[in-house]
Amino acid sequence: MRAADAGDPLMGGLVARHGPMKTLDLIRTGRLMDVEEDAGARLTGGLRTWRARLAAADPEADLAAGERTGAHLVVPGTPEWPTQLDQLGDRRPLGLWVHGTADLRYSCLRSVSIVGSRAATPYGLHVAADFAATLADSGWTVISGAALGIDAAAHRGALAAGGPTIAVLACGTDVAYPLAHHDLLAQIREEGAVVSECPPGVHPTRSRFLIRNRLIAALSPGTLVVEAALRSGAANTAAHAQSLSRHLAAVPGPITSELSAGCHRLLRERDAVCVTSPEELIDLVGAIGDDLAPAPRGPVVARDALSETARRVLDAVPGTGGAGPASIAVAAGTDLSATLSALGSLAAAGYVLRTPRGWRLKPRTTTPC
Amino acid sequence: MRAADAGDPLMGGLVARHGPMKTLDLIRTGRLMDVEEDAGARLTGGLRTWRARLAAADPEADLAAGERTGAHLVVPGTPEWPTQLDQLGDRRPLGLWVHGTADLRYSCLRSVSIVGSRAATPYGLHVAADFAATLADSGWTVISGAALGIDAAAHRGALAAGGPTIAVLACGTDVAYPLAHHDLLAQIREEGAVVSECPPGVHPTRSRFLIRNRLIAALSPGTLVVEAALRSGAANTAAHAQSLSRHLAAVPGPITSELSAGCHRLLRERDAVCVTSPEELIDLVGAIGDDLAPAPRGPVVARDALSETARRVLDAVPGTGGAGPASIAVAAGTDLSATLSALGSLAAAGYVLRTPRGWRLKPRTTTPC
Repeated sequence: MRAADAGDPLMGGLVARHGPMKTLDLIRTGRLMDVEEDAGARLTGGLRTWRARLAAADPEADLAAGERTGAHLVVPGTPEWPTQLDQLGDRRPLGLWVHGTADLRYSCLRSVSIVGSRAATPYGLHVAADFAATLADSGWTVISGAALGIDAAAHRGALAAGGPTIAVLACGTDVAYPLAHHDLLAQIREEGAVVSECPPGVHPTRSRFLIRNRLIAALSPGTLVVEAALRSGAANTAAHAQSLSRHLAAVPGPITSELSAGCHRLLRERDAVCVTSPEELIDLVGAIGDDLAPAPRGPVVARDALSETARRVLDAVPGTGGAGPASIAVAAGTDLSATLSALGSLAAAGYVLRTPRGWRLKPRTTTPC
Repeated sequence: MRAADAGDPLMGGLVARHGPMKTLDLIRTGRLMDVEEDAGARLTGGLRTWRARLAAADPEADLAAGERTGAHLVVPGTPEWPTQLDQLGDRRPLGLWVHGTADLRYSCLRSVSIVGSRAATPYGLHVAADFAATLADSGWTVISGAALGIDAAAHRGALAAGGPTIAVLACGTDVAYPLAHHDLLAQIREEGAVVSECPPGVHPTRSRFLIRNRLIAALSPGTLVVEAALRSGAANTAAHAQSLSRHLAAVPGPITSELSAGCHRLLRERDAVCVTSPEELIDLVGAIGDDLAPAPRGPVVARDALSETARRVLDAVPGTGGAGPASIAVAAGTDLSATLSALGSLAAAGYVLRTPRGWRLKPRTTTPC
C-alpha cells in the first residue's frame, strides 16, 4: 500500500487484473512490462516510482504498527469490506485501515455523509450537529472527515445522540489531525471507527485530502453539504457523490453568507436536493418504502399473528440503544438460533431494526395488540 | 364593475361571450336566462346578486371619483391594457383602475413580481430591497402588493434606484392601506402606478387580497418569493404564477427561520428556481438571449458599421435614466422619424434599451470604437 499513491488508477487497474499479490510480484521482479499489453511511458514511470518506494516500504512494520495502535487492515473480499467502494473502479482503495468498534461494512449501509466548510458559521455548526444527532437517533451512521467546522459538528452530534460515527482521514488512523481533535478522534475510535487508506503514522498532504473525499462520498448512499464556499473540499466531495450516482443534498442558508454559496450552487446547477430537516434527508437517502418519513406506519403483521417465540423475542428487544442476539436470547429465554430466526422474521414484519449497536425496536412503531 | 365580485369566473364567462355592454343589458333587462344555454342555479343566484348590486351601483360616480382622485379605468382592448392578463381566462379582470405616471402595459413587459411575508425578518427586507434596486437599475419594473414587510421593501428598493414600481392593491387606488404606507403609495403614484380592480373608495377584505394575488402573478413574466411562512399569501401568489406557467423563483434562507420555510417548500416541491442574486433572477425571467447575465457582451454590430444618423442618435442617448425620442432627436439634431428608426436599429444591435422611463444605453455595454 505504500508503493503507489492512494487512489492511483494505474495501480488500481493492475490489481484488478492480476490481484494484489501477483501485482506486487510483477513489480518486484520487473516482469510487469512483459505481461502488460499497454505498457506505455506512464507504466514505465509508475514502475520506477513503485519499485523505489517498495524498497523503502516495510509492510510487516506497518501491520505491526497497526496492531500496536489498534487498527486493522480491511481489504476487498473480506467480510468487513464495504463493497459499495467497488464502484470506484480503478480508484478503489487497495485496502482500508480501520480503528474502532463499529463494523465498517454494516455501519455504512445505513449512513449519510455530512460535509462542509472548516470555517463554518454558528448556523452551519448548529445544523450539522442537529442533523447528525437526529440521524444517529434514527439508527443512521454519520460519516465525515473529522476536519474543523462542519465535520467535527457532525461527528459530535452523532456521538451526543449515542450513535456510531465514522471519520475518514487523509492520514494514518493513529495521527491526530487536526491536533485539536485528539480527543474527538479518540472518542470516535471508541464508539465508531476511524478509517484511512494511509498506513499508520502517515501525515496528511493537500492531495491526500482530495483523494480521501472520494471515500467519504463512496461509503454512503447519500452526501449532505451543510455549508460550503464556492470552491471547497465539500464541493469536491459532492462532485464525487454525484459521479457515483449517490444522493446529493444541500442545506440552504442566507444568500448573504458566502458559506452558503456553495450549497446554493449545488441546488441551482447540480440538481442537489434542498433539505431543511433530518427527516427530509432520511426520506431522500432511505431505501424506498423503508424510511418514508411523513406518517408513522405500523408493522405489516399483527402481533397476534406472531409465533410464541417471536412474541417473547420481541418483548426482549430494547426500545433504544441496541442489544446483541445472545443477550436478547437470554432475556427471552429462547435459544440462540431460534432467537436469530425470530429476529429476522420480526425485522421483515417491521417490528425491529438491526443497527450497528445491535437490535432495537423500530422507531415510531405502533404495536397493534 | 361593482355588480360581480372581482375575478368572478361566472361574470367573466358572460363578458367573454357577450361583451361587457351586452352583458350589462342582459342582466338589467332579465333576458340573461333566455340567451344562456347553461342557465343553472349558479347563474340564477349570480343574477340575483348582480341585479341587487347594480341597483345600488353608480358607475358614473365611480368614474367621476376616479377622475377626482387621479385614477383612470383601463379596460381590455384599449392600448394600455396588459394583454398578459388575458391568460386568466374567465378570471380576467373586467377592468383595472390605474393611478400613476407609468404606462401599465409597457411597464409590465419587463417586470418581476416580488412578494413575501408581512412579518419579514431584517434578512428578507434587505434581500427584497437589494433585488428591487438592482432590477430597477437594470430597467426592470418591480411589481408588488404594497403590504407591510417584503412588499414595501421591494417598492422602496425600486424607488430608491429611480425605477418605476407598480403596486397592485386589494382596495381602491385612492385608499391608503395599510395606513402606514400613505406616503409610500403617494410616491408610487408619482413614479410608477397604483393599480386595482376595485373602484375608488373600496376597502380591502380578506378575500380581495387572495383575488388580487392572481393579478400580481399574471402581470409579470416571473414571480420571486423572498420570505414566506408555509401558509402565506406569497405561497398563494406563487401558485398563481405556476398555474399561469410564469417563472417562479424563491430566495433560500436559514432553515431555522420559519419565514424561509415557504421558500424552501417551493424549492423542494414546486420546482421553483433557487435564486441568490438579482442577476440570476434576470437570467431566469429575461427573454432568452436578451438578458443572459454571465459575461458582459458587446453589441453585435460594430460602431463603425453604424450609419452617421445612428451614431449621432447613439451619442444622444443617456447612459442612465431615460429620454424620449423627441428629446433625443433634439440632442442628436436628427428628425423624429429618423431618430425612431435609428433607435430601433440600435436596440436590435444591442446598443440601447427602451425602458418605461425612455431610451437609455444598455447597461454593461462595452462600445467598440
